[in-house]
Amino acid sequence: MHILEILLKKRNGFGLSRDEIRFAIDRYTDGEIPDYQMSALLMACFINGMDEVETRALTEAMLHSGDVLDLSDIPGRKVDKHSTGGVGDKTSLILGPIAAAAGVRVPMISGRGLGHTGGTLDKLEAIPGLRVNLTEAEFRRGIEEIGFCLIGQTSRIAPADRKIYALRDVTATVDSIPLIVASIMSKKLAEGLDALVLDVKTGRGAFMKTLADSRRLAKALVSAGNSMGKKTIALITEMSQPLGTLVGNALEVEESIRTLRGEGPADLTELSLELAAEMILLAGLANDLPEARRVAGAQITSGRALEIMRRQVAFQGGDPAVVDDPGRLPAAPYSAAVKAARAGHVQSIDAERIGMAVVHLGGGRLTKEDVIDPAVGVRLIRKVGSPVEAGEPLAEVYYTGADRLARALPLVESAFQVGAGLTGPPPLIHQRIE
Amino acid sequence: MHILEILLKKRNGFGLSRDEIRFAIDRYTDGEIPDYQMSALLMACFINGMDEVETRALTEAMLHSGDVLDLSDIPGRKVDKHSTGGVGDKTSLILGPIAAAAGVRVPMISGRGLGHTGGTLDKLEAIPGLRVNLTEAEFRRGIEEIGFCLIGQTSRIAPADRKIYALRDVTATVDSIPLIVASIMSKKLAEGLDALVLDVKTGRGAFMKTLADSRRLAKALVSAGNSMGKKTIALITEMSQPLGTLVGNALEVEESIRTLRGEGPADLTELSLELAAEMILLAGLANDLPEARRVAGAQITSGRALEIMRRQVAFQGGDPAVVDDPGRLPAAPYSAAVKAARAGHVQSIDAERIGMAVVHLGGGRLTKEDVIDPAVGVRLIRKVGSPVEAGEPLAEVYYTGADRLARALPLVESAFQVGAGLTGPPPLIHQRIE
Repeated sequence: MHILEILLKKRNGFGLSRDEIRFAIDRYTDGEIPDYQMSALLMACFINGMDEVETRALTEAMLHSGDVLDLSDIPGRKVDKHSTGGVGDKTSLILGPIAAAAGVRVPMISGRGLGHTGGTLDKLEAIPGLRVNLTEAEFRRGIEEIGFCLIGQTSRIAPADRKIYALRDVTATVDSIPLIVASIMSKKLAEGLDALVLDVKTGRGAFMKTLADSRRLAKALVSAGNSMGKKTIALITEMSQPLGTLVGNALEVEESIRTLRGEGPADLTELSLELAAEMILLAGLANDLPEARRVAGAQITSGRALEIMRRQVAFQGGDPAVVDDPGRLPAAPYSAAVKAARAGHVQSIDAERIGMAVVHLGGGRLTKEDVIDPAVGVRLIRKVGSPVEAGEPLAEVYYTGADRLARALPLVESAFQVGAGLTGPPPLIHQRIE
Repeated sequence: MHILEILLKKRNGFGLSRDEIRFAIDRYTDGEIPDYQMSALLMACFINGMDEVETRALTEAMLHSGDVLDLSDIPGRKVDKHSTGGVGDKTSLILGPIAAAAGVRVPMISGRGLGHTGGTLDKLEAIPGLRVNLTEAEFRRGIEEIGFCLIGQTSRIAPADRKIYALRDVTATVDSIPLIVASIMSKKLAEGLDALVLDVKTGRGAFMKTLADSRRLAKALVSAGNSMGKKTIALITEMSQPLGTLVGNALEVEESIRTLRGEGPADLTELSLELAAEMILLAGLANDLPEARRVAGAQITSGRALEIMRRQVAFQGGDPAVVDDPGRLPAAPYSAAVKAARAGHVQSIDAERIGMAVVHLGGGRLTKEDVIDPAVGVRLIRKVGSPVEAGEPLAEVYYTGADRLARALPLVESAFQVGAGLTGPPPLIHQRIE
């Protein structure tokens, strides 16, 4: 087998065999195939596509390029959730405790934020003292004792993906569905899961901007997961406006705690419960989705989910008192209001602009080296469909430096479209794909 | 401008602007754009194609990546010929002297052989003492005083092509018409030509195996040349069997001398005269092609072309006595005959196998580092259409080592197809494209 034959085949539009894909991925990970050959192959895969069989083979090859956790000795079914990334999307911090409280084992390995979407690790680290770099033994103990533990990726998980992702990033081959599927699924399946729930975001603040593209991605992800023997379902959910009302690391932890107390905003509460219900169903802890929803809801009303969060924070070295007193979280010294210039209803809130505003405030990263300020962020006082009078506040911006505020404010202001049209909130869950 | 935008555009099937192509080629030549980005771009160009405007822009960018000779101070029109490469194709050594004798200035910069097709430089170097690494000043003087001079490419001519060609070779992006056109034309136009004749080979021994592909390549080459203000014409010529009767470096020099004496094989003589006539016509030294053919023919019958060769060989440091006594050329110590197993007519002679046989004899290169043995080669005693009795010789193989003969002989034997069908020689010139 030779990489040139593989390149030729894919260039000419033919499908690659499992062995050919494995060969290319293994040799590239080892450094035997140079970047310039892999980038040509990625471009050929991008343009000529990969079918389901190739996508599965690519996922498997990338998965087996590194360690795959075996959690089979821990009793109970292991189910995780993965989101394609959004603004204000803190559902992991909410559904993890809910599902764990219901008896699901949630071995969550998560990433950091880059660009306008936040990262779950960055949010969790807003809790003073909390560590996400647990050892594998600690992680296993967390899953076993608490049911929910959330750590960062190690260099031993899917190293092929790390190398290939860096190359895709600089060769315009990022937004290819088969390549995205293999990247996501190879990392998730390394967690030693029994089943997986996917939250595929759609709209202005999402990676996939149209419903059609989001549907194609969701179907490809579900197909890859199921073909590898891991029951996988996906919800396609709205990401044109931010989810919930708070965007920013400590602010999102605060909103997660409020939601676990039953005091969260409607959209965030509904989506977190729905995703948790899917996890509960996949774990075999309910007979159908309505029952799973009731089980999920009961974890909030009983306070059990909040208790799981308290224990998880303590287990990971964080200050568990924040769960009862979010005032202990880092807070920005200053705030500025963004007011409506005219009366009307909020027609839309551009999630990407809000996300970028938080990045400019210091709450996210433009490059991997940027240091996060956990305290800053934006509170949405009005959401899509809300009426507003001229001069009333639309949002509050929490900031530490006037120069950063100056960069963020125009983004927040221009994110809001206020108009005469009577509009309701957009549908939250567009489709369920299994 | 950024290489990622350029990659994205071509990946999505859009045409690149002249500035974008120039940017990519210049920055890649400078080393600012790394191999892995250029290889992704080459693959995108390969799969999504490049139109005539892009091909011209690519040719210009590659041409201007290095030195472009200015021969405008030398009187007379400068016209060269380029062949896409064949087996036994020694027309350059014949038409150069013919055209120069007729008053054309022929500034020929040529390449070396790699794989089954020979290189003109390797052939010329079979003449004892002959140098192809003349200085630019020597080259100019040769053109001015003799009218024909033949040197090797310098590192200052189209450096972008050298770098890109090496990358195409290892990324399965060689056989793309726009990339081939830019590679050929950027090097040829660097010679400071007024016009160019192209010999686009077609058939088993050619780079393009089908007439349709050869026609597409010829049209693209002619279009690129003409659009850059250099009158360009192409002949599509047969390359299923080798051209002439001798294949191998010294053997081909010998056959060239014989042809310049008027004693060459019919196909080689006809093609050399036709290509030379096209050069004479392009140089404005004849009113039409029939007149140009008469002018070309007269250079042989008058002995003027042979005299040009004698002077050119001497000018380049070679032994001019070989022109009158080809016995002074290197000769192999041994020969072996290949005989017909059955009676019939020769149906076909696989040029690629004959070419590879010569490579295995030591007369060509499999890698750039291989050293050429100028003496070895193959003489075709029968050509396509010739009758043969069982046991009569088809070819003679000239060799130096028995081990090399053992590798070459099966190729020569299997190259000949002898059958009952009455077949004539194939048409030599398929089409003229201008």
